[in-house]
This record gives sequence, C-alpha cells and structure tokens, in this order.
Amino acid sequence: MSELRRDPLNGRWVIIAPERADRPNAFLRRAPMDEPMSSPFLPGKEQLTPPEVFALREPGSSWNGPGWNVRVVPNRFPALRTETVLARKGTGLFDQVSGTGAHEVIVESPDPRGHLGTLPQEQVQRVLSAWAERIRDLSRDTRLRYAQLFQNHGQAAGATVSHPHAQLIALPLVPPDIVEELAVARAHFEEKERCLTCDVLAQEREDRSRVVLETATVLALAPYASRSPFEVQLFPKAHKSAFERTSDAELAGLADALRLVLGKLDVALEKPAYNLFLVTQPLREPDAPHAHFRLGVRPALALWGGFEWGAGLTINPTAPEEAARFLRQTEVPS
Amino acid sequence: MSELRRDPLNGRWVIIAPERADRPNAFLRRAPMDEPMSSPFLPGKEQLTPPEVFALREPGSSWNGPGWNVRVVPNRFPALRTETVLARKGTGLFDQVSGTGAHEVIVESPDPRGHLGTLPQEQVQRVLSAWAERIRDLSRDTRLRYAQLFQNHGQAAGATVSHPHAQLIALPLVPPDIVEELAVARAHFEEKERCLTCDVLAQEREDRSRVVLETATVLALAPYASRSPFEVQLFPKAHKSAFERTSDAELAGLADALRLVLGKLDVALEKPAYNLFLVTQPLREPDAPHAHFRLGVRPALALWGGFEWGAGLTINPTAPEEAARFLRQTEVPS
Repeated sequence: MSELRRDPLNGRWVIIAPERADRPNAFLRRAPMDEPMSSPFLPGKEQLTPPEVFALREPGSSWNGPGWNVRVVPNRFPALRTETVLARKGTGLFDQVSGTGAHEVIVESPDPRGHLGTLPQEQVQRVLSAWAERIRDLSRDTRLRYAQLFQNHGQAAGATVSHPHAQLIALPLVPPDIVEELAVARAHFEEKERCLTCDVLAQEREDRSRVVLETATVLALAPYASRSPFEVQLFPKAHKSAFERTSDAELAGLADALRLVLGKLDVALEKPAYNLFLVTQPLREPDAPHAHFRLGVRPALALWGGFEWGAGLTINPTAPEEAARFLRQTEVPS
Repeated sequence: MSELRRDPLNGRWVIIAPERADRPNAFLRRAPMDEPMSSPFLPGKEQLTPPEVFALREPGSSWNGPGWNVRVVPNRFPALRTETVLARKGTGLFDQVSGTGAHEVIVESPDPRGHLGTLPQEQVQRVLSAWAERIRDLSRDTRLRYAQLFQNHGQAAGATVSHPHAQLIALPLVPPDIVEELAVARAHFEEKERCLTCDVLAQEREDRSRVVLETATVLALAPYASRSPFEVQLFPKAHKSAFERTSDAELAGLADALRLVLGKLDVALEKPAYNLFLVTQPLREPDAPHAHFRLGVRPALALWGGFEWGAGLTINPTAPEEAARFLRQTEVPS
C-alpha cells in the first residue's frame, strides 16, 4: 500500500509506492564505473589541470607535482568563476546575478579507482578535512554566500570522470531549498526552543526502524520521506550547525560512518552510482541553535520523470524501512 | 559567461553556464526509442490492461475491444489507488496521508510508434481532449485535490513503454511546488491586479529572444530561467486558469503548437527522450485571475547530480536564447 509522507525538515511530500518496484525496468541499471575511464587527475599529470589551490602532500613534494594525498584544483569547465565581478540586475520581471563564485574539484585519492566507500579510513578523514578547509577558505570571500559540496560517482549519477573526486560550488546567494529549510527549522526553534533535526534524531533513535547505522557520534538514517530508493542521511548526533567547524575528532567519526554506509550500499546494490551532498549553514553565519548539518547519499537508481518535474514531488518505490532493514543486515567485508 | 537567473513564476534560481556544454559527455546520449519495445497497449490486446475507464472509439466498436483512437486505463503499477480509504495521520514529527488517488495511463494512439510530435494533428487534438476529459471526471472525487498530467517519452526520460502514452496521477493534496507558485502569482495579483504569467508573456512577446513559436493563440518559450537545456513552455496567450476548461477551439490551437514544438525538438536534437507535464489549477477551484496554465517540455539531456539534489538549483549549460534561436530556425518536414 502506498502512502504520501511529508519531510519534517522542509515540508516536501513524497509518495512511497512499493508496488511501483514491481514494474519491469523499475530501476536504472547502468554499468557501474569499475573500469576507470582515462583520468585527468593522475599523479605526474598535474599539468592537465589548472594550478592547485590546496593539497595535502607528502613532506618534500612540490606544488603541482606528484606526492599529494588530496589535491584541489579549479574545475576546467566552471559553472561559476571568482574572476567575474559581482553584479545584480533586473530586467522587467527577470532577476539576474552574475556568475560570480567558485567551482573546485577535490581529487580524493592519487589512485583513480574506488570511492569513499573503498578508500582507507585515514584517507577518507583527510578528504573530509580537505572539504572543510576549502569551505573555510572560500568563506573569506564575502561575495560568496553558500558552499555546495557534492559528489557524482558513476555515469548514472552524472559523473564524467571516474577518478574519485568531489566538487565544491560556492554561490553568491543561498539556494532556495536551504533558505526554505532554515526557515522551517527557525520556526520550530522559535516555538519550542529545540533544534528540529535534534528532535527528528531523537524520534528515530527511539523508533529504530529507519536507522541504518549508529556510532558513538553519528546517526545514519533512511529518512522517513526518502525522495529516492536507498537514500541515506548522516547526521552528527550532537548538535552542530556548520560542517566546516567540525573538529578533527568529529570528522574522524563522520569519515568512519560515511565509509561504512557507502560500503554497505556497494554490497547491497552492487556498486551503484550515487550522488553525495552536504547540507549546511550559509557561509560566515554564526553557529545557530536551529541549524544542524547533514550529509545525504542518493544511489542513482531512478530517473526524474514528468511527474517529478511537474509536481516537484517524487515517487519512491522503496520504503525507507525496507532500505534500512536491508542495509542494517548488509555486512561490509573488511 | 555564466549567470544566475530567477524564475519569476516560482522564485527558483538556476545557473545558466554555457561553458559547461564544452565538457566531454556533457549531454546524455541514450538511444532514442525508435524501435518500439513490446507494447502492452496494442489494439486487440486490450485484455493485457485493466478495464478501460474512458475511450474515444470508432462507431460500433465495443468497450475493451479494438476500434479506439485514444484509450484510458488504470496503471497496472499504480502510485496511488482510488480504493484506498483517505486517512491522514501524524506520528510525532512525521505526517502521512494514505495513498488515495488515481493513476491512469492515456494510450495516445493505436500505433505503437511515434509520439505527439509525429501523430496527425487531429489525433493530437483528440489526445488533449482526452486529457481534459479525464481531469474533469477525476475532479468529481472530492478527496482528490490536484491532477498531475505528464508524459515520459524515451528511456532516458524514465519511460518503460515506448507506445505513445501519457499518465495522470490525481493526488489527495496540492503538490508543494504548485502551492508555492500559486502563492507567488496571488501576491503579484494582489499588488498589481494583473496575472503574473500574462505579464511575463507580454515581456517575452516584446523581447522575442526566447520565443520559440507564436501562433494565433499560443506562445511557446524557452523560459528565461530554464532548468534544463532546450526546455520549452507553451502558454495560452489569452488568460486561462484551468486546462480542463479549455474549449475545443483552444485545444485545437494548443495541439497544433505542441505538435510543432515536439517536431522541432525531434529535428533539432535528433529525436530526444523528453518529459512533458501540465501545470494547472487545483481541482474544482473556480477560474482565478492569477492562475494561468502551461505545458512544459523537457528534453532529457542532462541528469540531476549531487549539486542539484543538495542545492535544489540546477545548472543548465544551454542559454534559453540559444535554444530558442535554434528551435525557431528548425524546419519541421510536413
């Protein structure tokens, strides 16, 4: 039996429709990216990218040469550019902002194979600290209002390069979905003096049916109103508003949990393509009692169709309780 | 040079980033559905579907037999069901509505090949009147609040059947995107006593740069803040709030324009997969001076990635002015 569910964090509805899973070809099955495509990010080929803006390097290695563990470079095909002068303009009913921003690629390993679910734990932690470092650095540019960190892994998830990497797009405005979510969270806090996400985590920890994994510091959930099959969200259990102000100890815990979740998805769904993204506070905002960051992971199993484009409401054929049960039972080979 | 643009109809931003189009594999290239897959909708095979709820038939033909031009049946894998008793429930922070609704398939031709861009004009008009008829009929069920009409054409657009068909999902709530858009339109009307869409159409008819096609009754635009490449929206030029109350003459004009737009996309993009969807008023609402229906068409050329999932803001590598210029020049063989 299907049902409609409302996501308490943003008010969006989804249709959970298990019967739809019985359709022929209900799920995308495109080849996962096991065979690496030719990589522009290999050590020794640093000249193929624009000069690096940040790297975690072995002692004695030189900038733009080999010897790095994590390397950050500007995207060669940027959606936004720091060189663009910030300008806002209206033409009749139309509003426009110049494409001022940053678009960086965070190369997550010298090895072109694998992803955050297969890299060693200490490397995943380095990657997360590089994400945080880049957001901290970009926040110094006061024209920029929000940094969207994300990963596309596998062709079905929109990746055009298989070498493990994340991207960071810093924007001159706060994305409307973030504005909306923060407004919902602020209203909850003003009424109850509690963080809405903390309240959701408390309810989920009691209920257990959607818990994928719980560690000392992280709760990973198949969210109540999952927009797509096997979506997983990872939250710090302790209230924390800005990802980039996470301590090294907290990052280590998050790296552990993320690696385990991605490892479970690899086993359960046979190395799916996936998207990963961070939802955090706007840049330079002080820690807020209502804002609570999270990481979202969405295996690329379903396409948006005309229904989703029209109604802005998705149909998810996998109940999150089913996904969570399956992922809880999935063992990751060590 | 890229820029951010705001859609005046709903306040959503997009990044128009032409440089992104230079990436290798920037666009999806999956086989269009030229070779029809085996069809469950063929004349003479009416037993393969649930019993029909509506059909436009040749005189003398019988229900659930051959002789139809357009045939409407319940979806075999429904997202929502009319039999489900409507119930609303809260559990702590979580809100839920039973999966009460309708999910119908509108088979648009006895011929399993082609689509609305290739069917004869009179058949396209029949299809549009069947859409309207089904929405009118479903509006009699007062549990249902909104009818989402859509099409997925081609595998890359999420279709699992190539036989030309649309789908209609009637929901027990108004989708949040529609609520939001109507609120924006109502605020504009309250301030100015004018329909926001009518104002946008006036500005676009003067500007011309995003006009794909203008007929006596329809304006087809590459919208200012197109969310994906070669998106086209079709509007009745005269103010009209509810699609299902369109007259036969208006439907004929819309059918003409829609057929021509889809024909142009077929030539320009080499038979792309696409999604089509209707944006209209909630069921049973009286004609409103601020609501103006439209049809949207989105060729399935790009996937959502982590950026779009995280920020709810899309990156479109094709400026709508470029798309409109290209489509204006595209000749459709008659």
